[in-house]
Amino acid sequence: MNEQQRARRPGGRSARVAAEVHRAVTDLIVERGYGKFTVGEVAARAGVADSSIYRRWGNLEALLSDVMLNHLNAQSPMPDTGTIDGDLRTYAANVAREITGPAGLALVRLAVALSSDSEHAVRARDQLRDERTRQLQSMLDRARARGEDAPDALGVLDHILAPMYIRVLFGIGPLTPEYVDGLVDRLL
Amino acid sequence: MNEQQRARRPGGRSARVAAEVHRAVTDLIVERGYGKFTVGEVAARAGVADSSIYRRWGNLEALLSDVMLNHLNAQSPMPDTGTIDGDLRTYAANVAREITGPAGLALVRLAVALSSDSEHAVRARDQLRDERTRQLQSMLDRARARGEDAPDALGVLDHILAPMYIRVLFGIGPLTPEYVDGLVDRLL
Repeated sequence: MNEQQRARRPGGRSARVAAEVHRAVTDLIVERGYGKFTVGEVAARAGVADSSIYRRWGNLEALLSDVMLNHLNAQSPMPDTGTIDGDLRTYAANVAREITGPAGLALVRLAVALSSDSEHAVRARDQLRDERTRQLQSMLDRARARGEDAPDALGVLDHILAPMYIRVLFGIGPLTPEYVDGLVDRLL
Repeated sequence: MNEQQRARRPGGRSARVAAEVHRAVTDLIVERGYGKFTVGEVAARAGVADSSIYRRWGNLEALLSDVMLNHLNAQSPMPDTGTIDGDLRTYAANVAREITGPAGLALVRLAVALSSDSEHAVRARDQLRDERTRQLQSMLDRARARGEDAPDALGVLDHILAPMYIRVLFGIGPLTPEYVDGLVDRLL
């Protein structure tokens, strides 16, 4: 298949537009931060029409949430090591690496930006949270299906993810492997 | 003492300037959010010179941190009920009420705003965190002095405060008294 054929296929073109738009959003977040750019600016940078963005995502908040979900799924996929112990340790270590790295507290910043009175914003935040919770729940369900004891998803949020997020947010560090493993030990 | 005498006393005038400046900051945060106003705008609204603010607080970030500390000390003072159990339950309930109320996640929003590369911002965040940690530590030290077992301050942050902050941030609610007491039970 040559470039011209690829350009004619709706799936191919659609995927390329999505990739360009995601890249434009990521660049604008790095340059300016959340809440500091418009759909028009994303469209201009991605080289697409505003209407393409509105048709596909509906609004800026839903687009931001989609970009974040894409990022999380790529950087912190839910592990499948065969044991709940291995899954939780791997997941916790991935999150620790992610939030202490260059993207840092991007998820917390986005959640703060979306925690407004705007219905669009709150819906986008809730969809992102629900999708990641669904993935986490699948990991925990696999453990139960193997006959293992597994904590519930809110327990993982409360006692593994929340302490790491809050420590990074308030500059209490570093998140050593011993500390991160200790959080998992305490929950299991 | 009449108004004229009060106006001549340095302590009285200084306290009134601080109160006016704090009020101006609080109004601007409510109207625009963190990071959306300058020292000049605070000074204009408070009816004082910019130089008065710089002389007293040094920079905008230190002023924001002072306003937040003042607010926390007024709204969520560290309790002294005579038992660690009573102190932690009261403290946790106060924080839950505060972060689900109109001021909401003000502390998290400020921490996000201050978690930048600016040295002033990070110093202001650290001072605020250290002062509140010192107060919490005093509460825990009183318990130990009475011969009680007490968790350490980071344990309270990780397993009582962090879960409540993150649940409110991601819209997982409500923080019922049973949930909040359960966090305390789990830690003690």
